Amino acid sequence: MNERVVEYFRQFQDRLAAAVSAADRGTAFREDSWIRAEGGGGRSRVIENGAVFEKAGVNFSEVFGELTPEFAKQLPGDGLSFRATGVSWVLHPRNPYVPTVHGNFRFLEHGSKSWFGGGADLTPYYPFREDVLHFHKSWKEVVNRFAPMTDYDKMKAECDKYFYLPHRHEARGVGGIFFDYFDGGDLEKAFEFVREASGAFPAAYLPIVERRKDMPFTVREREFQEYRRGRYVEFNLIYDRGTLFGLKTNGRIESILMSLPPTVRYKYDWRAESGSPEAALTDYWLKPQAWADADLSG
Amino acid sequence: MNERVVEYFRQFQDRLAAAVSAADRGTAFREDSWIRAEGGGGRSRVIENGAVFEKAGVNFSEVFGELTPEFAKQLPGDGLSFRATGVSWVLHPRNPYVPTVHGNFRFLEHGSKSWFGGGADLTPYYPFREDVLHFHKSWKEVVNRFAPMTDYDKMKAECDKYFYLPHRHEARGVGGIFFDYFDGGDLEKAFEFVREASGAFPAAYLPIVERRKDMPFTVREREFQEYRRGRYVEFNLIYDRGTLFGLKTNGRIESILMSLPPTVRYKYDWRAESGSPEAALTDYWLKPQAWADADLSG
Repeated sequence: MNERVVEYFRQFQDRLAAAVSAADRGTAFREDSWIRAEGGGGRSRVIENGAVFEKAGVNFSEVFGELTPEFAKQLPGDGLSFRATGVSWVLHPRNPYVPTVHGNFRFLEHGSKSWFGGGADLTPYYPFREDVLHFHKSWKEVVNRFAPMTDYDKMKAECDKYFYLPHRHEARGVGGIFFDYFDGGDLEKAFEFVREASGAFPAAYLPIVERRKDMPFTVREREFQEYRRGRYVEFNLIYDRGTLFGLKTNGRIESILMSLPPTVRYKYDWRAESGSPEAALTDYWLKPQAWADADLSG
Repeated sequence: MNERVVEYFRQFQDRLAAAVSAADRGTAFREDSWIRAEGGGGRSRVIENGAVFEKAGVNFSEVFGELTPEFAKQLPGDGLSFRATGVSWVLHPRNPYVPTVHGNFRFLEHGSKSWFGGGADLTPYYPFREDVLHFHKSWKEVVNRFAPMTDYDKMKAECDKYFYLPHRHEARGVGGIFFDYFDGGDLEKAFEFVREASGAFPAAYLPIVERRKDMPFTVREREFQEYRRGRYVEFNLIYDRGTLFGLKTNGRIESILMSLPPTVRYKYDWRAESGSPEAALTDYWLKPQAWADADLSG
């Protein structure tokens, strides 16, 4: 199974990078292969200052070796040996009307246990109802294809719970799906779900990019985008398990931190004007809803 | 003692804000007073888009109440009641030739124990030997005035150890002094040291600002400054004890995060050209030295 998953994730990285490159008017990804001293390695692909994406990273990695006893205790399974492979991506568009997006799918083996994890979540600055609904409905469709092994409401709720900044009492974005420790009672079937879910990503996100990438914007929207990107940094550096685990276990720093936005603005105690589009983000869009069941008339 | 320390820190905030305001060609600080539901409060003062400082925060706070049992165990003293007061500041200059600076002094009471902590550290982008030596020699002078109660070498080494990014194997800046759990065996004398050390800050830093604030710079220096500010964010959000404690214990978020730089740039795997001034920062300046004993001829 592990070899087949590794092979799939590798191929998926190729496919996704090709799709992102095409959406960026053909900009080529820079590619860096790296080796982890303790076992394994990866392949990072990054676009900086692209036509559409100001920064886009699509990473593949496959690592193995021994866990620390403390960390091993926090995971399902037994012993210290582990094997982990995954693909993860973060796309930071230039245009403030295009949402930032993150996704990752992974497979872990620890002693007698094997499981998948992953998901995707959308972080808009100036959300459009059509886009938010499209993203959520895309995930609901693919997750429901595998019911009852999969539970869309649970995966949606886990995403809202995970991508949350407790110190701000604020969601990172409008969510999506997220799952972990998932074997579906049938690892082969779970792998099929992961293939279809990851495969659903381009159609869940890229049409949104197409619709919004050429919208005119002013300094106001750009500054708000840079200000909100600060929240993305807060989440990734304070709470994101993958980021912190990577940083504290000698991962490849530049691959881990490729998730950080290209430019960011931190303002003291900034508040959106009541009733403005900027206020709508936090007052309306960042409050979780059953978006996949909503309709366009809102 | 507590009341006298509170009164001193309040006055020091006034004095420091006045000195920073004057160095910023008279820009007035915005002031926000806040109340902590669990006990105490503070007074935050911030300049944004000043003439010299792109962002400058000078905070005073005085908080009291009950510690969680887990946190209480990590501190000297006994019981759950605590009282803490402090003043802290971070100054982010606009000109990349002016170093960023941080300082804080604090007083804690926990059961039968009382102690001071604090220090100041300098984070230059394009360091000048004269500036680095001046900063360090200023601290050595004031610390040595209180020897043998104080130990300059220890306070210097603690600063280097604390302001360090393990995941980058890199110092945050060129250091300064840092101390904690300090009562000097004579709390009254320790308070005198804290008064003189905090009082030494303006003369340790502001002459550097005067010398560099009008130096011409180009997009190159500005981008490097914004890139390096990313490291400041990494340190504060991943490692800084004060920041993390504040965020996780319902502190006033905007006062805690006023330390973050106004604009930041995250680049993927960026490397300075060998032999460039940008390479000199990491290759030479960020490697700790006994700067206070060095001379200008270097």
